[in-house]
Amino acid sequence: MDKRTKFTLDEKEMPTHWYNIQADLPKPLPPGLHPGTGKPLTPDDLAPLFPMELIKQEVSTERWIEIPDEVRDIYRLWRPTTLFRAHRLEKALDTPAKIFYKYEGTSPPGSHKPNTAVAQAYYNKQEGTKRITTETGAGQWGSALSFGCACFGIELKVYMVAISYHQKPYRRIMMETWGAKCVPSPSPDTKTGRDMLAKDPECPGSLGLAISEAVEDCVTHENTKYSLGSVLNHVLLHQTINGIETKKLMEQADAYPDIIVGCIGGGSNFAGLFLPFVKDKIDGTKPDLRIINVEPASCPTVTKGPYAYDFGDSAKLAPIVKMYTLGHGFIPPPVHAGGLRYHGMAPIICHLHQLGFVEARAEHQIATFKAGVTFARAEGIISAPETNHCIKVAIDEALKCRESGEAKTILIAHSGHGHVDMAAYDAYLSGKLIDYEYPKEMVEAALSELPKVG
Amino acid sequence: MDKRTKFTLDEKEMPTHWYNIQADLPKPLPPGLHPGTGKPLTPDDLAPLFPMELIKQEVSTERWIEIPDEVRDIYRLWRPTTLFRAHRLEKALDTPAKIFYKYEGTSPPGSHKPNTAVAQAYYNKQEGTKRITTETGAGQWGSALSFGCACFGIELKVYMVAISYHQKPYRRIMMETWGAKCVPSPSPDTKTGRDMLAKDPECPGSLGLAISEAVEDCVTHENTKYSLGSVLNHVLLHQTINGIETKKLMEQADAYPDIIVGCIGGGSNFAGLFLPFVKDKIDGTKPDLRIINVEPASCPTVTKGPYAYDFGDSAKLAPIVKMYTLGHGFIPPPVHAGGLRYHGMAPIICHLHQLGFVEARAEHQIATFKAGVTFARAEGIISAPETNHCIKVAIDEALKCRESGEAKTILIAHSGHGHVDMAAYDAYLSGKLIDYEYPKEMVEAALSELPKVG
Repeated sequence: MDKRTKFTLDEKEMPTHWYNIQADLPKPLPPGLHPGTGKPLTPDDLAPLFPMELIKQEVSTERWIEIPDEVRDIYRLWRPTTLFRAHRLEKALDTPAKIFYKYEGTSPPGSHKPNTAVAQAYYNKQEGTKRITTETGAGQWGSALSFGCACFGIELKVYMVAISYHQKPYRRIMMETWGAKCVPSPSPDTKTGRDMLAKDPECPGSLGLAISEAVEDCVTHENTKYSLGSVLNHVLLHQTINGIETKKLMEQADAYPDIIVGCIGGGSNFAGLFLPFVKDKIDGTKPDLRIINVEPASCPTVTKGPYAYDFGDSAKLAPIVKMYTLGHGFIPPPVHAGGLRYHGMAPIICHLHQLGFVEARAEHQIATFKAGVTFARAEGIISAPETNHCIKVAIDEALKCRESGEAKTILIAHSGHGHVDMAAYDAYLSGKLIDYEYPKEMVEAALSELPKVG
Repeated sequence: MDKRTKFTLDEKEMPTHWYNIQADLPKPLPPGLHPGTGKPLTPDDLAPLFPMELIKQEVSTERWIEIPDEVRDIYRLWRPTTLFRAHRLEKALDTPAKIFYKYEGTSPPGSHKPNTAVAQAYYNKQEGTKRITTETGAGQWGSALSFGCACFGIELKVYMVAISYHQKPYRRIMMETWGAKCVPSPSPDTKTGRDMLAKDPECPGSLGLAISEAVEDCVTHENTKYSLGSVLNHVLLHQTINGIETKKLMEQADAYPDIIVGCIGGGSNFAGLFLPFVKDKIDGTKPDLRIINVEPASCPTVTKGPYAYDFGDSAKLAPIVKMYTLGHGFIPPPVHAGGLRYHGMAPIICHLHQLGFVEARAEHQIATFKAGVTFARAEGIISAPETNHCIKVAIDEALKCRESGEAKTILIAHSGHGHVDMAAYDAYLSGKLIDYEYPKEMVEAALSELPKVG
């Protein structure tokens, strides 16, 4: 047996450019629309929110975009990340499949998120931004951007969904350790927040509301920009460093995936890994490559939602984009995989799904934790609840191989560790975890509110 | 400037042998004594507790001891670990010093502990052990041994100090995720525990009591052995893989440390790193190398304790060894660095201190967290409270270099991350952390109880 477990690159071999899928799409992405006018977005529309370099990246069709040296210097703290061959998991499953996982959990905040957080902080710094606002749900993104802003000495204000702020203090403390200010949303710091608190002082908050507060704070303060951690094209672009590394490392392992699996919430982690591979499917080099997006059965955006123009946020302040959506007013059930609780999906992923290059699957949370525990006992790593979704599908595919005798190569996009999600494992291990059914009626109600555009 | 940040070894270059300092000590270690008779320990005395191979390693004077392939196969999941050059910390401190840190936080449980946990589980498996018992304070060791036992299919029972069991559930859940059983100590599962609960149903427990329960459970059950995570010679031996890697990596960086700093509780992490270097001081190759052990000011074993024979545990069931000690009955103040709250110290470290090869320093916890936050904002990693102790001293030494203009090379033994210690950072950041004075009278009382032996 080939015993090699880890495939690594020296930091000298770290990619120098991000890969921009927009150069290779057989059809261009449908344009984003202005939330107020419904007309195609212009760079000027976005200028109050983002630095110009990121706005340019959002619409660029250049294939390779250079990673600034200052960003690479910080990436070096944890990148390139390791590709693992899951020998011990294969043995536990008694499968002829070859399972690999690219692990993003060694970054300081413990996930893929800083790949874009550091880049966004850098471009803001370059253009004179003194302060950034953002929102966060369970806190993965907020902690990553806190780290990014600490690297460049930018002030950061994070609006954290109130219920998570109170129930999950560890991510909030991480943000503060890196020097950011984090407040529960709704907060008294914005008109949106004050209005909501006047209506309901005990309001638990939502991601949509937190986005509204962060955007309002941005546009009402000097030298302040706003930052988003997923969905947008420039975010996915920054994540492609992961896929470029993985392609090199799979070559080192003398392998190419038959199946790539990843979890999708807004889609940035998985897209970052698969975009450099999907290129091979688009150009016909690897027609049989399967790319499987895995989402929660209780928030099945791609598997059940229509492909339609919708707002990125519930308060209708964010751009309108064409995507699979469950409706901008939909509030997903409280699954532990907080990073997958989003009504929409990255337009790039939706477009590739429409074109038939990627597929989607939905999983219930109890089954995903069962898979996560199997993975932890074999490979050691305790994975984030989000990641457990694609581990579940990888195990299913490996077990199919056991039946068929095929030695397929399965690649998992492992987004990070679950060190601050142990309460979810506790619920699973003590039999208290529940599955949430697909809330069909709530989705239908939310879908009736789609904007009449496009 | 040399920009290189990370120095890594391919898994093919992973050390094949542990380094045994007992081969190179100018004077042999004083013998361990039987806790009942006070006579020198024989292998037969230890046989009820440990597998024979570990007992042999405990007294071996062979210089290199081969690491079994099965252990190396599991080490591959995270080893070799990375040596970092702390460019960003150097810049933040404006120091000419070159600061390096060897980071053990990427192991599944997040610390150096599995280096010995995996080895101990392996030797137990080889000798037919079906079940292991151990104790744990804050849970680092218990979680590491849970992972180790999961790797070899051995049942594990962990007695966790009750107050930590209730206050710090995350480590307990990690243990359960890897399949171990964890109970609060005192527990109703042993006579020692029942007696204590009868006396005080609300007893918060102590490490000494938990050791007693684990040992009692071991000797009263079939096919059961006991395991200890620090202090003993074989534990330090297994940790030397870290120092051997570090020596190779420092060569890669074309550097040799002037100063090595590490935190010490039982001493296993730091000894694992410095033992392969102290060899160079013993044989006269590097007479100016300084090795600084850092302990809490409130539990200053080496800086304030006498060098004397004492019991390893408060219940007087563990062997009597010659070490610096604050007395086996001493209960250290509740500093957040739970891994440094031990009355004694590894005999090997104490012996080297006696011989003048290593020095010791004590630090208060507020200053260590201040240093930890400086480190996190520069290098990204949020460190364990234990590790913050040596980061504090490294920063002090780097600032001395700023004064003197010397470009000293400082190497930090970074034992692991602080992801499940965020409550301690919260206390520091919100100004609620307190320093504990050295409890002189309690120590004097405890020292009056030293055994009359040796």
